[in-house]
Amino acid sequence: MATAGKVIKCKAAVAWEPNKPLVIEEVEVAPPQANEIRFKVVATAVCHSDLYHLFESMPKDGFPAVLGHEAAGIVESVGPGVTEFQPGDKVIPIFLSQCKECRFCKSPKTNQCDLAWKRINPEALVGAESRFTCKGKKVLQFAGTSTFSEYTVINQIAVAKIDPAAPLEKVCLIGCGICTGYGAAVNTAKVEPGSTCAVFGLGAVGLAAVMGCKAAGAKRIIAVDLNPDKAEKAKVLGATDFVNPKDHNKPIHEVLAGMTNGGVDYSVECVGNVEVMRSAFESCMPAWGVSVIVGWTELNDVAIRPTHLISGRTWKGSLFGGFKSKDGVTKMVKAYLDKKLQLDEFITHNMTLDQVNDAIELMKHSKWYHFLVLFIY
Amino acid sequence: MATAGKVIKCKAAVAWEPNKPLVIEEVEVAPPQANEIRFKVVATAVCHSDLYHLFESMPKDGFPAVLGHEAAGIVESVGPGVTEFQPGDKVIPIFLSQCKECRFCKSPKTNQCDLAWKRINPEALVGAESRFTCKGKKVLQFAGTSTFSEYTVINQIAVAKIDPAAPLEKVCLIGCGICTGYGAAVNTAKVEPGSTCAVFGLGAVGLAAVMGCKAAGAKRIIAVDLNPDKAEKAKVLGATDFVNPKDHNKPIHEVLAGMTNGGVDYSVECVGNVEVMRSAFESCMPAWGVSVIVGWTELNDVAIRPTHLISGRTWKGSLFGGFKSKDGVTKMVKAYLDKKLQLDEFITHNMTLDQVNDAIELMKHSKWYHFLVLFIY
Repeated sequence: MATAGKVIKCKAAVAWEPNKPLVIEEVEVAPPQANEIRFKVVATAVCHSDLYHLFESMPKDGFPAVLGHEAAGIVESVGPGVTEFQPGDKVIPIFLSQCKECRFCKSPKTNQCDLAWKRINPEALVGAESRFTCKGKKVLQFAGTSTFSEYTVINQIAVAKIDPAAPLEKVCLIGCGICTGYGAAVNTAKVEPGSTCAVFGLGAVGLAAVMGCKAAGAKRIIAVDLNPDKAEKAKVLGATDFVNPKDHNKPIHEVLAGMTNGGVDYSVECVGNVEVMRSAFESCMPAWGVSVIVGWTELNDVAIRPTHLISGRTWKGSLFGGFKSKDGVTKMVKAYLDKKLQLDEFITHNMTLDQVNDAIELMKHSKWYHFLVLFIY
Repeated sequence: MATAGKVIKCKAAVAWEPNKPLVIEEVEVAPPQANEIRFKVVATAVCHSDLYHLFESMPKDGFPAVLGHEAAGIVESVGPGVTEFQPGDKVIPIFLSQCKECRFCKSPKTNQCDLAWKRINPEALVGAESRFTCKGKKVLQFAGTSTFSEYTVINQIAVAKIDPAAPLEKVCLIGCGICTGYGAAVNTAKVEPGSTCAVFGLGAVGLAAVMGCKAAGAKRIIAVDLNPDKAEKAKVLGATDFVNPKDHNKPIHEVLAGMTNGGVDYSVECVGNVEVMRSAFESCMPAWGVSVIVGWTELNDVAIRPTHLISGRTWKGSLFGGFKSKDGVTKMVKAYLDKKLQLDEFITHNMTLDQVNDAIELMKHSKWYHFLVLFIY
């Protein structure tokens, strides 16, 4: 490409400071360095984690930044040492790396990567390095990705090459929400055929968890949300029941216990709220119930009664659905192309980068649940 | 036996009220009713759970009671419908039933029994029924067992028949502490060969957990206790390292992370203290660490950071070491007779029932860790 080796000037939405609208700016995107690739972002979605950074956690070392991490694009150029990617390849970036060489990547027990939290400061959720500048200032890369930009640069350990036939405006969702929810059910909870499941929170992640429960063969899938408008979509994706905690006078875990003769076999929390995490945990059957936390928060501790573990429950957490990130994305894109995975149902709006603040407002008003908005450039 | 069908008058230690010394009394033990057996208690140990009831939880509906639940004895008579036991059989009572007919007993996923918490009120930890009276008053059966008595009556679903060759003054320990600790490592944590483990709290349960880790093939077993006198016994049972939190200026989970390149593969909490539960959990390796709560408390919640689960840890609890209770006890007695299990090392004192308050004082002074005292009648 004519731009290879040169700084690209392009549009990006810059979060200059927390709790303020993003500003569409012309930014400079430096050429990829060793082991990095630069790609054109063709489609990106807004995920609640972007909003979490902007409005909730607001880390003091986390701004200015370009947000966005759920995306798909086409490689523009590659840095020295990159052999896996070539210009023109279709790719999906991932906030979680897979270096394939560390003790974690070599273990079948985890999808963590030793380099993940060296690339991204876990306190501030921004990359230690950045290829972005704007108005003479360094602009940080949120989640090490920064996809609210026409171009971005990412280390190859955090980018998956995908099938050239994949429609980028759909499969971009696989880069975060879909894998996170679906995998939490399939890989982390390891939902068994014939089981009863509950999914708390019906944003994109929760809906993907419903889809994962169904794919794993669950017989009954109880979808839980405060917003009754979410029921219909949940049922399209496999939910058999919808429960709105507002419709009941007793705690939701007691409601579910009553519906299921003691509790569900598996519960998945997709909200990021510690009270919901506790409810989801307590909704599990003593004896063998497994509860998985997917929603992210670092703002509060979550508390439980020790005897609720001793009675036989298991509590787990799931990051990126337990998928080894690059391998998982490639596989899930194939599943979509093979018509084994629903994605189109998750897309609620198509907007442009200039409308990013409208997209964020739309998601904010769906309260504390995910709400998926898609940009197409 | 000449006593069959008659009330037996015998000695028992009665807890008339919480936080007071036990009183040696003459009690009446009624004949066994349907599906019950009455047996002579030959040996019983003091477990921290007895002290928990007497001094910590002090449930208002839990007194007067006969404490004691870790014991072995010989069947005196059986009630109608009992075919598995005969007078003269050696037996071990268990606070956790195994009816073999409920959905839990029929599942390989749990050692819970649907009848367990119907027999014993989980709030007060005493049986709903009792065969004990003293001075005209009903005396409750703590844990449904009441082994601080020369005779007791228990439903057959909570009694294991054991090998006639078993020395009761040793194998009585299998009725609680040994199975609880050993099984937490082997059955619940599922410790793998070559792994690194940490055991918090070196009472009988913790020492048994050390032994379980060793039996499972752990390469490194770090024993943690505030009392340096516990180190020697822990090493006899398999510990490779001893760490006293008092010797360090930083939190114990940071000390263990430093010793183990990030955290242990498995940790087992054997104290019943929510701060220790949190430390044990945080001491696990992110990515794949498994932490198991064994210590019992209902007095406080335990809190963690949600992201400490999301990064890949698993949190479990273990009741009676995950053993199906009757089957497990019979099997563990056999393991002792086959010299595959150490028990003698756990016995610190031999005392009589009249000395029960001395035994309790000895255990109290070992702080919040178990301390094993054995009665032989």
